[in-house]
Amino acid sequence: MASTIFIQTPFQSKSLNKSLNTHFVPSFKLPVSLSFKPRTAAFSKRVHIRAGLIEPDGGKLVDLHVSEPERELKKREAASLPKVKLTPIDVQWVHVLSEGWASPLTGFMRESEFLQTLHFNSLRLDDGSFVNMSVPIVLAIDDLQKASIGESDRVALLDSDDKLIAILTDIEIYKHPKEERIARTWGTTAPGLPYVEETITNAGNWLIGGDLEVIAPIKYNDGLDRFRLSPVELRKEFERRNADAVFAFQLRNPVHNGHALLMTDTRRRLLEMGYKNPILLLHPLGGYTKADDVPLSWRMKQHEKVLEDGVLDPETTVVSIFPSPMHYAGPTEVQWHAKARINAGANFYIVGRDPAGMGHPVEKRDLYDADHGKKVLSMAPGLERLNILPFRVAAYDKTQGKMAFFDPSRAQDFLFISGTKMRTLAKNKENPPPGFMCPGGWEVLVEYYASLTPLDNDRIPQPVAA
Amino acid sequence: MASTIFIQTPFQSKSLNKSLNTHFVPSFKLPVSLSFKPRTAAFSKRVHIRAGLIEPDGGKLVDLHVSEPERELKKREAASLPKVKLTPIDVQWVHVLSEGWASPLTGFMRESEFLQTLHFNSLRLDDGSFVNMSVPIVLAIDDLQKASIGESDRVALLDSDDKLIAILTDIEIYKHPKEERIARTWGTTAPGLPYVEETITNAGNWLIGGDLEVIAPIKYNDGLDRFRLSPVELRKEFERRNADAVFAFQLRNPVHNGHALLMTDTRRRLLEMGYKNPILLLHPLGGYTKADDVPLSWRMKQHEKVLEDGVLDPETTVVSIFPSPMHYAGPTEVQWHAKARINAGANFYIVGRDPAGMGHPVEKRDLYDADHGKKVLSMAPGLERLNILPFRVAAYDKTQGKMAFFDPSRAQDFLFISGTKMRTLAKNKENPPPGFMCPGGWEVLVEYYASLTPLDNDRIPQPVAA
Repeated sequence: MASTIFIQTPFQSKSLNKSLNTHFVPSFKLPVSLSFKPRTAAFSKRVHIRAGLIEPDGGKLVDLHVSEPERELKKREAASLPKVKLTPIDVQWVHVLSEGWASPLTGFMRESEFLQTLHFNSLRLDDGSFVNMSVPIVLAIDDLQKASIGESDRVALLDSDDKLIAILTDIEIYKHPKEERIARTWGTTAPGLPYVEETITNAGNWLIGGDLEVIAPIKYNDGLDRFRLSPVELRKEFERRNADAVFAFQLRNPVHNGHALLMTDTRRRLLEMGYKNPILLLHPLGGYTKADDVPLSWRMKQHEKVLEDGVLDPETTVVSIFPSPMHYAGPTEVQWHAKARINAGANFYIVGRDPAGMGHPVEKRDLYDADHGKKVLSMAPGLERLNILPFRVAAYDKTQGKMAFFDPSRAQDFLFISGTKMRTLAKNKENPPPGFMCPGGWEVLVEYYASLTPLDNDRIPQPVAA
Repeated sequence: MASTIFIQTPFQSKSLNKSLNTHFVPSFKLPVSLSFKPRTAAFSKRVHIRAGLIEPDGGKLVDLHVSEPERELKKREAASLPKVKLTPIDVQWVHVLSEGWASPLTGFMRESEFLQTLHFNSLRLDDGSFVNMSVPIVLAIDDLQKASIGESDRVALLDSDDKLIAILTDIEIYKHPKEERIARTWGTTAPGLPYVEETITNAGNWLIGGDLEVIAPIKYNDGLDRFRLSPVELRKEFERRNADAVFAFQLRNPVHNGHALLMTDTRRRLLEMGYKNPILLLHPLGGYTKADDVPLSWRMKQHEKVLEDGVLDPETTVVSIFPSPMHYAGPTEVQWHAKARINAGANFYIVGRDPAGMGHPVEKRDLYDADHGKKVLSMAPGLERLNILPFRVAAYDKTQGKMAFFDPSRAQDFLFISGTKMRTLAKNKENPPPGFMCPGGWEVLVEYYASLTPLDNDRIPQPVAA
């Protein structure tokens, strides 16, 4: 019953040596030789099965919501404050911050946090320990907004309908070094990076940091809010299910049977390692994605079908939406994806080929080395407590008629079905080879592409491998 | 006599909390408000005066030289190995590595070290602790060289005269992601970065890492080798002088009286803090610099004059050459400059405005925010043991007729003499205001510019503020 003992204990600093022991799962075959001297020792050590869920970063989950009785007071206070208008993506970040996905961050980054993020992908806490923090969570304002704030030490944040979202307190305004931010976050400044074009290029020349007081939980009223479990809610759910291990699977694409194989195989291996009840967190990203990704609502329909069709076991799977926007920043961003899941209670993180990657926006190649994501993730400061589970590549095994782990000794038996290929098939209402995806899930994809107007279809940029 | 007890003790992992206490020097007035939550606590704590010199990173200084009796054997071995030709800058890096400036690195970086440097500016050691490492120390090879190496696990490294410099063993060849390396190191990919154009743009598409066996100490035979003290030699010198504090001053420009004021003032303050014999390491950078910087030989002449003229006290000053090439990578590079000085025995590091910075190669602005260098340095992982001494800006005080700390309350009394201004004066054989630089030092500069052919003079790009 160890797993039911979930208490948010105060942060205890841990010896790194101890925590390193649990970082890699020794019984997994790694698809690449991870020959970093620092961590090889870990392979020979046993995984420590802990009582209760993994502690959030900084020891406790941040909750930035104003208490119900305070709301009216805060609304009245906000009325007299300088106003800053948020974009929909800014609101997504308020959502992320408010629920503690970025714990111990308590609001949009001040310059110290911004610089540490850019240079070190981590933040140093008062006790000298590090938490991981790889993407800047910042709020840009322009010269006019800055002038309108004047000497005020707080501002009201409004959404595009002028609804009060939050108050930002104890503010700090500092320069927005756009070029440097882009170069250090993406490792390129090439034009055409989706998040950059959407949120940075035309953003203001200043950043405003501070502590958030969020008036009410962020809702989208799109029929999917019930899937948007907060880290607190997810932890309660894992506890309710008596999870003694939680393994997270981040995705922004439809689930095919290769993904499913990987997830069920992970569970099997966790059971072999001695865990009694490993629970899968199937965690599609719900914030901003680029135009040619399948929209969240269609992905959720597809994921539901996959569960209905029994490809994944609903008893041991929690499907929830991760509210973060997508950066497509590869090795830098995968750290954020992993770190946020620690805060949601996951102690195992599955990482595949080229996580959070995309095609180079200008050159004809992938933007990132396909192996850098898992390597960087395994070395990242502040993620020592997380067990990184590198993907074994799955492909369609023509001899078995199903998705299977790729066996290089009989490469000719395997078919790699890229995202591009999958998309083309679905667009043309053709079927993939049987066993690639459950039929119900495939129908959702075909329906999605059929729903696009021809204009939309033409507009879709060259898609990128899943 | 504590300071004479210099023993290279084995590395003991230290609690970060403890080491943080000594990171900032509380009695210094900071020129900027350094309001990072993580470190503010340190300001109120006392500086711990330690016995003996600061320990090198990783606990002991790396020495990559082959022992004298082994040399002939190694030369014979090298004869049968695949060869890689080094550029003069590559040789400078071999020099840096061989003497342990980059301890605990034992050779050109393998991919794991390269990725940790790019993403985290630090390397994780076996015991879980971090050392700082912010610039990639890598060796590029092209496709042909890679093919010629084949399956060999070691290569011979030759200089441009085909002289054997070193053997690189246990090699690892991996992709050279040039764009990403540049973006993450410089925070820009703009054309015109001097180190990039000199060493990366036309370099090969592969990097080769491994352990170095350096045949003989690197010499340049330029009359300045006697100034090239290794970290071991510097430590011996500090010990011989009974130093109980060593404060390092990195520079790549002529010394003017503003610099001198800062250095003497630092010593005064260290004495006030209770140190008995603080020694200044005046440490001009001796490796590659860009075309419009004053060449090393002229700078050394100028520094000698400054000491002769009594501006700095030779009794408490060690002048030596730091063999590293210059990246001009601002906040990223200043960490390297500081870290290398820990290895040379310095426990205090003076940092000024825009360290290792330059003008943006394309836009009309400085490449880096002038305050980011000192901020990033003060937050950098692995530099907790180093006391960072932020500059107070010095300028020419017209009322006193000398360089003095700038007093914003009477700004009109001060004259800022930029590097551009200084250069123009020296070129035109004019004199700066009396008290700006000792006359002997100024004459060296005038002589240098006079020695340039008119063609050279025309070619010199727009200089950058000192």
